[in-house]
Amino acid sequence: MSRAPDTWILTADCPSLLGTVDVVTRYLYEQHCYVTEHHSFDDRLSGRFFIRVEFRQSDDFDEARFRAGLAERGEAFGMLFELTAPKHRPKVVIMVSKADHCLNDLLYRQRIGQLSMDVVAVISNHPDLEPLAQWHRIPYYHFALDPHDKPAQERKVLQVIEEAGAELVILARYMQVLSPELCRKLDGWAINIHHSLLPGFKGAKPYHQAYNKGVKLVGATAHYINNDLDEGPIIAQGVESVDHSHYPEDLIAKGRDIECLTLARAVGYHIERRVFLNANRTVVL
Amino acid sequence: MSRAPDTWILTADCPSLLGTVDVVTRYLYEQHCYVTEHHSFDDRLSGRFFIRVEFRQSDDFDEARFRAGLAERGEAFGMLFELTAPKHRPKVVIMVSKADHCLNDLLYRQRIGQLSMDVVAVISNHPDLEPLAQWHRIPYYHFALDPHDKPAQERKVLQVIEEAGAELVILARYMQVLSPELCRKLDGWAINIHHSLLPGFKGAKPYHQAYNKGVKLVGATAHYINNDLDEGPIIAQGVESVDHSHYPEDLIAKGRDIECLTLARAVGYHIERRVFLNANRTVVL
Amino acid sequence: MSRAPDTWILTADCPSLLGTVDVVTRYLYEQHCYVTEHHSFDDRLSGRFFIRVEFRQSDDFDEARFRAGLAERGEAFGMLFELTAPKHRPKVVIMVSKADHCLNDLLYRQRIGQLSMDVVAVISNHPDLEPLAQWHRIPYYHFALDPHDKPAQERKVLQVIEEAGAELVILARYMQVLSPELCRKLDGWAINIHHSLLPGFKGAKPYHQAYNKGVKLVGATAHYINNDLDEGPIIAQGVESVDHSHYPEDLIAKGRDIECLTLARAVGYHIERRVFLNANRTVVL
Amino acid sequence: MSRAPDTWILTADCPSLLGTVDVVTRYLYEQHCYVTEHHSFDDRLSGRFFIRVEFRQSDDFDEARFRAGLAERGEAFGMLFELTAPKHRPKVVIMVSKADHCLNDLLYRQRIGQLSMDVVAVISNHPDLEPLAQWHRIPYYHFALDPHDKPAQERKVLQVIEEAGAELVILARYMQVLSPELCRKLDGWAINIHHSLLPGFKGAKPYHQAYNKGVKLVGATAHYINNDLDEGPIIAQGVESVDHSHYPEDLIAKGRDIECLTLARAVGYHIERRVFLNANRTVVL
Repeated sequence: MSRAPDTWILTADCPSLLGTVDVVTRYLYEQHCYVTEHHSFDDRLSGRFFIRVEFRQSDDFDEARFRAGLAERGEAFGMLFELTAPKHRPKVVIMVSKADHCLNDLLYRQRIGQLSMDVVAVISNHPDLEPLAQWHRIPYYHFALDPHDKPAQERKVLQVIEEAGAELVILARYMQVLSPELCRKLDGWAINIHHSLLPGFKGAKPYHQAYNKGVKLVGATAHYINNDLDEGPIIAQGVESVDHSHYPEDLIAKGRDIECLTLARAVGYHIERRVFLNANRTVVL
Repeated sequence: MSRAPDTWILTADCPSLLGTVDVVTRYLYEQHCYVTEHHSFDDRLSGRFFIRVEFRQSDDFDEARFRAGLAERGEAFGMLFELTAPKHRPKVVIMVSKADHCLNDLLYRQRIGQLSMDVVAVISNHPDLEPLAQWHRIPYYHFALDPHDKPAQERKVLQVIEEAGAELVILARYMQVLSPELCRKLDGWAINIHHSLLPGFKGAKPYHQAYNKGVKLVGATAHYINNDLDEGPIIAQGVESVDHSHYPEDLIAKGRDIECLTLARAVGYHIERRVFLNANRTVVL
Repeated sequence: MSRAPDTWILTADCPSLLGTVDVVTRYLYEQHCYVTEHHSFDDRLSGRFFIRVEFRQSDDFDEARFRAGLAERGEAFGMLFELTAPKHRPKVVIMVSKADHCLNDLLYRQRIGQLSMDVVAVISNHPDLEPLAQWHRIPYYHFALDPHDKPAQERKVLQVIEEAGAELVILARYMQVLSPELCRKLDGWAINIHHSLLPGFKGAKPYHQAYNKGVKLVGATAHYINNDLDEGPIIAQGVESVDHSHYPEDLIAKGRDIECLTLARAVGYHIERRVFLNANRTVVL
Repeated sequence: MSRAPDTWILTADCPSLLGTVDVVTRYLYEQHCYVTEHHSFDDRLSGRFFIRVEFRQSDDFDEARFRAGLAERGEAFGMLFELTAPKHRPKVVIMVSKADHCLNDLLYRQRIGQLSMDVVAVISNHPDLEPLAQWHRIPYYHFALDPHDKPAQERKVLQVIEEAGAELVILARYMQVLSPELCRKLDGWAINIHHSLLPGFKGAKPYHQAYNKGVKLVGATAHYINNDLDEGPIIAQGVESVDHSHYPEDLIAKGRDIECLTLARAVGYHIERRVFLNANRTVVL
């Protein structure tokens, strides 16, 4: 689980074909790279192969040469790969509105090293959470929504994301519907937490919907953004028991814990390069 | 939890009003009935009061007199109550199709005394599960569906239920849509197990639906039948984690365990008189 | 679950006897107090009765008169009761060492109103967590341990607790063994979080112990302090799945979440007056 | 998860060394075997490598030749491997006493194909469960214990196991302590279910122990038998919440479900060749 400090992560996927495993493992062996964990999965319904390997580099490891060699080997398989350096900490932008439980939780996990990421900016359509960001010495951008010019606000958001060089955007209870344009730009590298067990209770006020249905379980869903709101590929889901004595505000309180845990889990998977897109589903290795 | 052998159950509900608790507890005290567990709940949104009491009878307890006295006291509150005798075992009819996991589980729990009920008949639209019922010495009724005369089959079903004097009907994976007439007749005293976390994935093949959505949790819902299919008040829900490697048939296998546990839990609650209807929700005390 | 703003909590316990419920409910009715939730439990093994009632006061409610009247009624039953006012927020002292996850979590829950308490002091044997307390504007007391005079440090600790008028002490990963004297003084009103599923893995380094045993579940236990270390009455326990790939440091990371959740749950139960001592066990209503 | 019908399982382990993955994957590729799932783990604390591969055989696959070739390749690594044929169903002997919930559950799962095994004998020190075995057409051996000659009974047990050619022995609530000799013979291929979360509550009456400690969670542990009672390597653990209202008999009832599920899970892992011994721990791939 916990990687040793000198451990690289190699992830790759390609269409199912004889030899997909071998092309990776043989190359690693020839390069004298020591494999510490290897997980691959060949999806017989979608006909796609996914592999994730953690390895220690050899003494004379050269990243550029390694990449070039692997690209050559994988070409015949249509293999796309990513290589993540041992101490790489992705740059992350977090978007919030007024609720701070997920932000508080993510920043705490960054602070103690449980999430190896650098939060480089917090963006909000409200000013409320600036003190929390400040205490963690993270720049806070308050871009109020102009109901007459929503695109203007999104342009500012996107500018911060781009200038910060963000590799991951986290929507930590950002309570605005993104435009299709922004969704498209964030497709596959932005994680949203939806406060219900999707696909149940899509849209607004899911805990009130859940109360009205008298459910005995409430949950949360962390998923990638794609162009269809609340429908992107699911990364993680969490759940908690409730009963008749939980009024809507109690469901909301219960939900906070499960939202924090589910979002943190999904972000951890993403950062550790465990998540692969497989059409509208994910493979988590 | 486990009732002593001489313990009665008293349940009642009525509109919220000052004195609802007192009317019950004072009466029990005056009748020298010893309260071993008492749980009441006053729902401030629906304005309704629910109470469940377990008590040991006094030496000179007389059921008829007790009922008459309580009815008199509760009248001003519009209180409806039910009284369940210490050793009462409700008569139960179980309806099945071909899948036998829930039936096997329910009969097992009856056999070892975990569910204090008498299964008096098993009804099916298929002959497959007769040996299982026979081994437990329970009459098995095979009523095949005539696509040209579905009401005829339902009339036979209802006749068995009525002649058996059933107090509870369990739809243990009975894969037929009941007619509105039959639903109406079973309203509030028939429990169905739906193999999804309702209201997600209503209707047929929920595990295939769940696979296509790439969910990371599957579940089951036990609910009372009412006139709206898959929409009756929820009694219990259960859930299990799944991942990308679970094909639809794996989800079905995973689901069996959670269906058994969830249905057995709901049936236990019902038999112990823990479940109250509160419009389209339940209160479980 | 969530109390309306004008709701009192009444808790009481006494030996099992006919009339224990009635004495409370009749009094509430006579005082025109409206019961919104009532839960009582009569433990047939220990022969003790426990009751918790939430009620709305009458228009002419007078606390002193209410208390006096109830004391009189309960006397014949040996009944001890506590009455908690609608907006009462208990004063709390939190003790920590270097790990800050539980402190961070508790202060967050106080901040958003999920735990209705006033943290009036943080005490530590290390200076590390002062900035966190400061940001929440809570006095921080750093009392280093003098190995040659441990009682001196405990005297300072106790002085802060007493001068702050604390009603609850939380040991939020305070990594020192308390002396029997201090334990005795805190008996029943100090909650400790132990990072294992007690009684397994008592004492130091429980996650390393758990790793060596190859367990597939790790957990945490929140319990009251009594004079026997790690043996006080359990309030809440939580658990998480682990596997072979979790090295001891991974178990520790996994454990943080479950420690936070379990401790917060126990503190919430205590503040809402749900927890009763029943010899070395607890009743949680 | 669910294997396609023509899928082999290859498992192997050896000391950690550069090339351990490659030696397996290259060989599979050279033999034109198509890998559908591959999981390997290199334990940096114990310095041991574990690998599990599912693969489809090539058109001209020859098992003997395949084995010989792999043995040759693996020799330099000290690699031990096992090969499991696509339709192989291991022969299993189940040992019971009087409690039948685990036996009922295991036989049910065999019947519906969820556990791909052939239960060839049920052995008991009591006659009670013979009807259940008979209904499944499985031979039942009742070997009463002679307190003056316990070894005599164990010799009969062992004879049945050996003559049946059992590959797995399941102690499904067999309430006798096995002798060190029998333990040694079953070391690593007999699974026991202990009705507690080991290492807590070892030995007899764990639910009564749990009640006395006032725990809020009860659980079960499935583990391999080794020479130290209740201390063999853990395969799976399960857990359920309980509260003060659960008397010891309620804990026992709650425990039955979790014992069934935990044991079935462990047996499934074993049959699918997912479990590796790693000193006194297991690796489950």
